[in-house]
Amino acid sequence: MTQAELYAALSRQALETPSWGYGDTGTRFKTFAYPGAARNVWERVADAATVHRLSGIAPRVALHIPWDRVDDWSELRGFAEAQGVGIGAINPNLFQRDAFKLGSFGHPDEAVRKEAVAHVLECIEVLEQTGAKDLSLWFADGLNYAGQDDLRARKRRFEDALSEVYAALPERARLLLEYKPFEPAFYATDVADWGMAYAHLLKLGERALVLVDLGHHLPGANVEQIVAFLLSEGRLGGFHFNGRRYADDDLIVGSTDPFGLFCLYAELVLAEREGVPGATEVSYMIDQSHAIEPKLEAMLRSVLNCQEAYAKALQLDVGALRAAQAAGDVLGAHGVLRDAFATDVRPLLRAWREARGLPADPLRALREGGYDARNARERGTAAAGGGYPT
Amino acid sequence: MTQAELYAALSRQALETPSWGYGDTGTRFKTFAYPGAARNVWERVADAATVHRLSGIAPRVALHIPWDRVDDWSELRGFAEAQGVGIGAINPNLFQRDAFKLGSFGHPDEAVRKEAVAHVLECIEVLEQTGAKDLSLWFADGLNYAGQDDLRARKRRFEDALSEVYAALPERARLLLEYKPFEPAFYATDVADWGMAYAHLLKLGERALVLVDLGHHLPGANVEQIVAFLLSEGRLGGFHFNGRRYADDDLIVGSTDPFGLFCLYAELVLAEREGVPGATEVSYMIDQSHAIEPKLEAMLRSVLNCQEAYAKALQLDVGALRAAQAAGDVLGAHGVLRDAFATDVRPLLRAWREARGLPADPLRALREGGYDARNARERGTAAAGGGYPT
Amino acid sequence: MTQAELYAALSRQALETPSWGYGDTGTRFKTFAYPGAARNVWERVADAATVHRLSGIAPRVALHIPWDRVDDWSELRGFAEAQGVGIGAINPNLFQRDAFKLGSFGHPDEAVRKEAVAHVLECIEVLEQTGAKDLSLWFADGLNYAGQDDLRARKRRFEDALSEVYAALPERARLLLEYKPFEPAFYATDVADWGMAYAHLLKLGERALVLVDLGHHLPGANVEQIVAFLLSEGRLGGFHFNGRRYADDDLIVGSTDPFGLFCLYAELVLAEREGVPGATEVSYMIDQSHAIEPKLEAMLRSVLNCQEAYAKALQLDVGALRAAQAAGDVLGAHGVLRDAFATDVRPLLRAWREARGLPADPLRALREGGYDARNARERGTAAAGGGYPT
Amino acid sequence: MTQAELYAALSRQALETPSWGYGDTGTRFKTFAYPGAARNVWERVADAATVHRLSGIAPRVALHIPWDRVDDWSELRGFAEAQGVGIGAINPNLFQRDAFKLGSFGHPDEAVRKEAVAHVLECIEVLEQTGAKDLSLWFADGLNYAGQDDLRARKRRFEDALSEVYAALPERARLLLEYKPFEPAFYATDVADWGMAYAHLLKLGERALVLVDLGHHLPGANVEQIVAFLLSEGRLGGFHFNGRRYADDDLIVGSTDPFGLFCLYAELVLAEREGVPGATEVSYMIDQSHAIEPKLEAMLRSVLNCQEAYAKALQLDVGALRAAQAAGDVLGAHGVLRDAFATDVRPLLRAWREARGLPADPLRALREGGYDARNARERGTAAAGGGYPT
Repeated sequence: MTQAELYAALSRQALETPSWGYGDTGTRFKTFAYPGAARNVWERVADAATVHRLSGIAPRVALHIPWDRVDDWSELRGFAEAQGVGIGAINPNLFQRDAFKLGSFGHPDEAVRKEAVAHVLECIEVLEQTGAKDLSLWFADGLNYAGQDDLRARKRRFEDALSEVYAALPERARLLLEYKPFEPAFYATDVADWGMAYAHLLKLGERALVLVDLGHHLPGANVEQIVAFLLSEGRLGGFHFNGRRYADDDLIVGSTDPFGLFCLYAELVLAEREGVPGATEVSYMIDQSHAIEPKLEAMLRSVLNCQEAYAKALQLDVGALRAAQAAGDVLGAHGVLRDAFATDVRPLLRAWREARGLPADPLRALREGGYDARNARERGTAAAGGGYPT
Repeated sequence: MTQAELYAALSRQALETPSWGYGDTGTRFKTFAYPGAARNVWERVADAATVHRLSGIAPRVALHIPWDRVDDWSELRGFAEAQGVGIGAINPNLFQRDAFKLGSFGHPDEAVRKEAVAHVLECIEVLEQTGAKDLSLWFADGLNYAGQDDLRARKRRFEDALSEVYAALPERARLLLEYKPFEPAFYATDVADWGMAYAHLLKLGERALVLVDLGHHLPGANVEQIVAFLLSEGRLGGFHFNGRRYADDDLIVGSTDPFGLFCLYAELVLAEREGVPGATEVSYMIDQSHAIEPKLEAMLRSVLNCQEAYAKALQLDVGALRAAQAAGDVLGAHGVLRDAFATDVRPLLRAWREARGLPADPLRALREGGYDARNARERGTAAAGGGYPT
Repeated sequence: MTQAELYAALSRQALETPSWGYGDTGTRFKTFAYPGAARNVWERVADAATVHRLSGIAPRVALHIPWDRVDDWSELRGFAEAQGVGIGAINPNLFQRDAFKLGSFGHPDEAVRKEAVAHVLECIEVLEQTGAKDLSLWFADGLNYAGQDDLRARKRRFEDALSEVYAALPERARLLLEYKPFEPAFYATDVADWGMAYAHLLKLGERALVLVDLGHHLPGANVEQIVAFLLSEGRLGGFHFNGRRYADDDLIVGSTDPFGLFCLYAELVLAEREGVPGATEVSYMIDQSHAIEPKLEAMLRSVLNCQEAYAKALQLDVGALRAAQAAGDVLGAHGVLRDAFATDVRPLLRAWREARGLPADPLRALREGGYDARNARERGTAAAGGGYPT
Repeated sequence: MTQAELYAALSRQALETPSWGYGDTGTRFKTFAYPGAARNVWERVADAATVHRLSGIAPRVALHIPWDRVDDWSELRGFAEAQGVGIGAINPNLFQRDAFKLGSFGHPDEAVRKEAVAHVLECIEVLEQTGAKDLSLWFADGLNYAGQDDLRARKRRFEDALSEVYAALPERARLLLEYKPFEPAFYATDVADWGMAYAHLLKLGERALVLVDLGHHLPGANVEQIVAFLLSEGRLGGFHFNGRRYADDDLIVGSTDPFGLFCLYAELVLAEREGVPGATEVSYMIDQSHAIEPKLEAMLRSVLNCQEAYAKALQLDVGALRAAQAAGDVLGAHGVLRDAFATDVRPLLRAWREARGLPADPLRALREGGYDARNARERGTAAAGGGYPT
């Protein structure tokens, strides 16, 4: 690639950061309060805009309903645009109402399922008003004990409810369905793996796509292969990026296995270069839970780790790779991939940033910019508590 | 259930044992030679017939080509029937030819793919001649290193080759496709999970079904949920039974997690009772690798463990279970399942055996029958082998 | 065993239930409020006493400081004894103060380490005043990111702090040290496995013992082997019982893998019968987090599952087992174990309960006794929230 | 570090390659024959010398008895030295004799245990005659089924046998004890984790140290933390390097998780710089099983991957790291580590090689040197073997 092509590719990269990543989150044991953590959707959007201003590649912020609910969505949209960011995916909350204790779309009680569907329909309304493109569905639905509920019946309930919400989706929008093997359910989860999501989506229609959360896999799962498979099927909708070593650890993406993140981006770059339909429509979103990290710095680091992985993938000598593969040259082909990964792309990224008028070292700019101190002063520190915000 | 219904259900149970389970198998480190282990297909079929005579529930023996290849298939079929067993699934070998070092259906070289397809077509011919119903496909195809081959291209090659062999399958027969997350490939496996098998099969036709090998899952995977999902989709073809704790350990089924095996049978019994289409067409096969166990005893124990799990599942109070589930009674519903599992079905099984003219204690009958001693005398002991160079 | 010996063994069984298991607990996503859940230590002790009255084998309640802190410990002790239960292990809280964000005994800041040690010393004071025997230490200390702190320095800090608190322990008391591979730290945990706990304890003294929490293991770990190893070393202090399938799921013990729980009890019964020193001094504690289960029923079920596993282990034909093992009879020895597990011990347990004047079916007695309804009426329902109580 | 210091450190790096890595190895399914693979110990040593000549950092070759047994050890030693390499660790084989089917040091039969001890004593004799320093013990001992043998008795048998062989070890030599969680045993392995190895070694003496094989861990285990712990205890003896994603995959080290390999080297470099006793005495050995890779290239790649990881670790700004850690600067400290990893060390390594008179690109030199073609011509291709019966 020429430098101009590299710069163009880097400039096309666009990540969404999640509004909830700017507030206090934690583990089941404790939520530590971070001084200056965003207290409401306006502050969350402002923080997302900060991350975008520093990085140049995080132009959208995902919303979570009801956490981010406002009276006037056009006001929020305008506020965001004024800050320089757009509204990303709309995320319903199907796990925190008391009614959802035993499930939402899969709940044995029809009344609860209706309540769940109604909430998603409300979120589609938000999607209409904010101009968002993606409805992003994650279900905590599942069972803690063998025999607790009827596995086939729950599947049918999901089919019915998914079909109802898909029908309500505007033509221009997409339904992204996330899967997860466990947590908070520890025996069975209704949409447990990509295959279950995929089987559901086939029954809906072409704008129903799989959302891959990097942390939602069993030990050893090859995520980039799942991604390649879904790309080939035209069913990859997007990502929730984060890092995992054990469970759904929700660490900073790329902090635990940078080579794995690079391999994933390599599949995406290959698909783009080889013209796989839909490859350029994939949504890239951060979804992490920072328990001990400074909020803004953790999000900025995440965005930059994605940029680094992407920049390394852009180094791939695709011709040499495909030739070695075709020749059955096992270590030669692997070596082409490794060489791209071994490249130090930090000088390239600094140069690209300077060409774009961005800070050459965004993390240093953040630290030196005094954002945290100002936020702490203006916003104060929340009372510490447990678990997610309610 | 009345006793007559229980007996009828127990009498309907039919398992396939694998011919290769009667010969010497081992780990990569060593294959220990068992005195009297079957040396050829005739002895393997004879041993399978012994297991059936003692248990009454193992009426078929699966074949593996080329290990079990004979000149005259009708002779083998007649021999088996004379011994009291029929021919079960036909299993091609797509991993042992030198040509298959980098894959078979997914190999980058078209000539190798053609060789692989030709071998499967030969197996379909065997299926025709033996009257077998199931063509059972397992692929060792995969990659050891990131970048080693083109993941999307390999998928397309599989699509083409699968489509070719499916077209050659007689109307009365079925194609069963197995998946496996790893081993012998340790970076990516071409058909790595049930979702990949399922996606391939949808493109073939209604007689293409998923084969679930209990050992082919990542840690924590809920196999009975996958089974329930596939039953609901009408795509469950059969099982390869074995026990696992770590990897594809290939231990005696039910020896590591008897409750898990029971939960799986509970899903099957529920599907049968609730009339799920295809539930009674599922094939049940043993597929284990006995490294240190006496051959016949290990196979008999496996068959009996399946019988015990099935008999416990037949104890399920389905009405009480479904009522507790509908009421959201988490521990009540789980308790109904537990109660079935807690039942000691050994007296029932002894009584059923006596009513059928079978030995009340098949394992004792095996030990007292002197089979191993006779086999050791008549067949001798093979040279040990396998594993690293010696 | 004669019936008298069986009854005597069953009557010796004694489990501790945790005070915190009677209040609302949850996952990081949500804590659902259970109607009538205990609101304070007095209600928690009363609930523990209910479980003991119904089961006859849960005579102690473990305390957690500060959650259970009272002004007058002798008053609490008297209250418990009047209810029929004693005070079990004392559990410091080293993870919820804001100061402990980056660790307690392993924290880089000496002032924080001193605060942590001071809290444990306070708990030793509680141990003195309540007559408790076990100080039970669990550390959430760890790192989320490679490089976050100095692994060897943290180890030394632990050595120093452990030595300080061990020195303060009264002669009659024991220090139990728990290990955990991950959560809430997701890169490294300071006391990550039994080996790290063991290495620390060797430096302390003979009353420093390992606490095995069933949920604190990586996938596949053989817990009963660890238990046998620690028994052989004289370093097994006790258990935290719960069920896991994926991570530290904290489900009802014995609900996920009843055979595994039985195998563990088999090692304990064998050690007792064969006179392994310390085998009769092991502490058995429940430690679970019930998110969707009725509080009292979940705890009672847990206690009864332990009883069932123990009763099955008592069925072991030890002589036959050891003889088959010595003869290298792989499947014969395994079969002896299986036969004990296959035994339906429910009739035995009913008979033992009736002989002891206990309800024959404690779960039914609980449901019919109207405890939950009364508690809901008298205690009301807490506000739902997130995470653990603070 | 100055360039001179960097060069000196790089020149001190010394890896052992295993003689058995130059012959044909495979999986339980198949051993593919590689054209020109070494057929005997002389060819294996010659290949090891080739890898050393090309890399400059693989000056020793480990031997495996009986695979490498010769009549005259001084002849072999002289041959090796003439080729430019020395004899590394001596590895007994305690898993391939028929007698070892149910174990070696842990076998229930005393006669078998004596045979096993005698074989190790023979290996100590080899160690004396070859001038080797390390006796490297790996045990396949374990159980496939719960109840198969007496876990505590097996532990005692290990204690006795280990004590016997340790007593026979010359003063200048060391006993390295390896652990492994599973394979070829799939229920329990006698030396299953580092803690069991450590507990055994404490009873032996100061020259008994733990050997860490990277592939011998359960999913998620933090190997660099185990390494740091053992370094701190003075009980780290050495490594068996290889790559794993699932089980004991035995892939090329650094091919699956290069960041993990770097983190491990970072702990070693930190320990060396901070003067941890024993840190400079650690043995670094490759132990892989190449099934589809060219033999020499795979070994050379492995050695170079270790060099790259080490060179990156040498980039660490130790002062900045320790300062950020002490300040509790989570992401700052992590960032120092990341920066070292992000460095492209290939130019440095090329320069160091040229300064040492080594080929700047050893892999290209290997390919261009025609080694494989010459070996194939002179040595021919072995008959394929291994795996299931054919």
